[in-house]
Amino acid sequence: MLKAAYYEGNQSVRVGACAPVPPAPGQVQIEVSHCGICGSDLHMFHGAMDQRVHMPFVFGHEMSGAIARVGEGVNGFSPGDHVTVRPIDPCGECPACRAGHSHVCQRLKFIGFDAPGALQSLWTVPAHTLHRLPASLPLEKAALVEPLSVACHDVRLAGVRKGEYVVIQGGGPIGILIALVVRNTGARAVISEVNPFRLSLARELGFEAVNPKETDLVKHVMDATRTAGADVVFEVSGSAAGAETITQLARVRGRIVVVAIFSHVPKVDLFRIFWRELSLQGTRVYEPEDFEQAIALAASGTLPLERLISEVCPLEGVQSALNRLESGGEVMKILVRCSEDEG
Amino acid sequence: MLKAAYYEGNQSVRVGACAPVPPAPGQVQIEVSHCGICGSDLHMFHGAMDQRVHMPFVFGHEMSGAIARVGEGVNGFSPGDHVTVRPIDPCGECPACRAGHSHVCQRLKFIGFDAPGALQSLWTVPAHTLHRLPASLPLEKAALVEPLSVACHDVRLAGVRKGEYVVIQGGGPIGILIALVVRNTGARAVISEVNPFRLSLARELGFEAVNPKETDLVKHVMDATRTAGADVVFEVSGSAAGAETITQLARVRGRIVVVAIFSHVPKVDLFRIFWRELSLQGTRVYEPEDFEQAIALAASGTLPLERLISEVCPLEGVQSALNRLESGGEVMKILVRCSEDEG
Repeated sequence: MLKAAYYEGNQSVRVGACAPVPPAPGQVQIEVSHCGICGSDLHMFHGAMDQRVHMPFVFGHEMSGAIARVGEGVNGFSPGDHVTVRPIDPCGECPACRAGHSHVCQRLKFIGFDAPGALQSLWTVPAHTLHRLPASLPLEKAALVEPLSVACHDVRLAGVRKGEYVVIQGGGPIGILIALVVRNTGARAVISEVNPFRLSLARELGFEAVNPKETDLVKHVMDATRTAGADVVFEVSGSAAGAETITQLARVRGRIVVVAIFSHVPKVDLFRIFWRELSLQGTRVYEPEDFEQAIALAASGTLPLERLISEVCPLEGVQSALNRLESGGEVMKILVRCSEDEG
Repeated sequence: MLKAAYYEGNQSVRVGACAPVPPAPGQVQIEVSHCGICGSDLHMFHGAMDQRVHMPFVFGHEMSGAIARVGEGVNGFSPGDHVTVRPIDPCGECPACRAGHSHVCQRLKFIGFDAPGALQSLWTVPAHTLHRLPASLPLEKAALVEPLSVACHDVRLAGVRKGEYVVIQGGGPIGILIALVVRNTGARAVISEVNPFRLSLARELGFEAVNPKETDLVKHVMDATRTAGADVVFEVSGSAAGAETITQLARVRGRIVVVAIFSHVPKVDLFRIFWRELSLQGTRVYEPEDFEQAIALAASGTLPLERLISEVCPLEGVQSALNRLESGGEVMKILVRCSEDEG
């Protein structure tokens, strides 16, 4: 039976029949294998996007699957091909698109919020969003390509180099993925995180991980770098405390990368940014090359991505998964099986 | 008679006899021609550096002059040579120095605050601070080379390119100099300033200048750029309002440059920095190449630098000059004549 998870408002998700959409010209229909649940989904679940999504709304955007049907004019993809989707649909006309930054289009449609998402058996999307997955990459693991692409984008824009000392504030899925990509670049990644489960997982993955509520993070970094400070600081916590420490952690001419979605306007020490000639770079979503890098990394097997998957549940488990993520307990990434015969 | 201006605390400056220091090995003694008064001098005058300077203290660091005596081991400079001083003395040993960023040394001595400055007839400095001035450049105008070097450094680190739309928040001497360098690069400079005198001067110099208390600056910039926003925003005002608008003015992937010395920790919209993938770069003082560029620009005569000089006074006028700058009235740059027979 074809199913879908529908967000209905009031922190409620219902599983019902999927209504497959035949692929129009330029579109493909995908049999979704797995779909991860992300912090933004949780944000929607809290009601923060009730004006943006059309309820009942199928959400989800971190997915893997196989092409089921191909619309007219779509070349290069055939039924059965394993794919993932880069879920952004730019307008192509705004100043950002015209300047070559269509991934941060001024009228960007994010598929999974501004158009129906992947938490369903059959999902229809524009073919321009597709990235081919190698047969060697299991579809379960491939559902992590989208968040891994975020990490690849962040690390690329930070220009992380071999041998650098990198602090990552926030050890959730994106923070850990950034740390994995940073380490793969040959740099040293130190994670700052307050959740004990996430701290343990970071340490099990071989990272130096610090609880800033127990250890003076700034002193720790200054001692480790002989008073220089960190080459790069990724701010993934979205907290006022995080916004305060970024400028204290970075070395002279150090780079700070803002990955987190801040829900408040924090104080930032612009004097320190001036004094140490720091740079601060905002990074959002990804560009096609980041997806290609993420797919290659995932397929290479060099990153222990499977260690981030806390559990795999059926579509019927989405509501309870959101509740568990909400509680901030012993959970990292939850994947949802969206079809009966997943890869 | 050899004279010097001594800061004595309590917003008081006394003119007294200069006590010439014979140049030690590696040093030169300069007959100072002109010395400008800068915002940092005003900051000191307010008492903010009373723990840092050794009173009675000769300040001043924006100068021009001629070599009077050369210490042992100094090559390439002879008495009579026209010079200016890059007034920074790095330790050479800290992580920033070792990484090649000695201009923002972690233990930087700024000559004019951490060592005696130029508001005196004869001034002794390390020879490594010297930059030669061409004979064609009048010494009065050459006193503007130091602040012009700040502007060159800021514009260089911002990577301003021909045709770009650039907003400069703050139309004091540094803001106007940045605008002049930006315009010289072939970019369009728009100045935001609240002081009516400075607004008029900016307009007389041919700049588009906006009073953000009368005009909606963000709307003005969005209209002018067809909703894109500015390519580059220089924040030179140091105000909370300035920290708020930087993120509203910049286009997707736009660059914000923090030039101002913030005396408070302002709120900065990190969400907007994330959303538009903005970058924010702190810039401080200058590197040798910035001085060389500033000297070449000043000597070329392409910039109307003389228009920034509101008045030229003798050393006896320093106290009253500081008071006038303090009042924020009809004044831009005040120069001080430091010797009787200036160039």
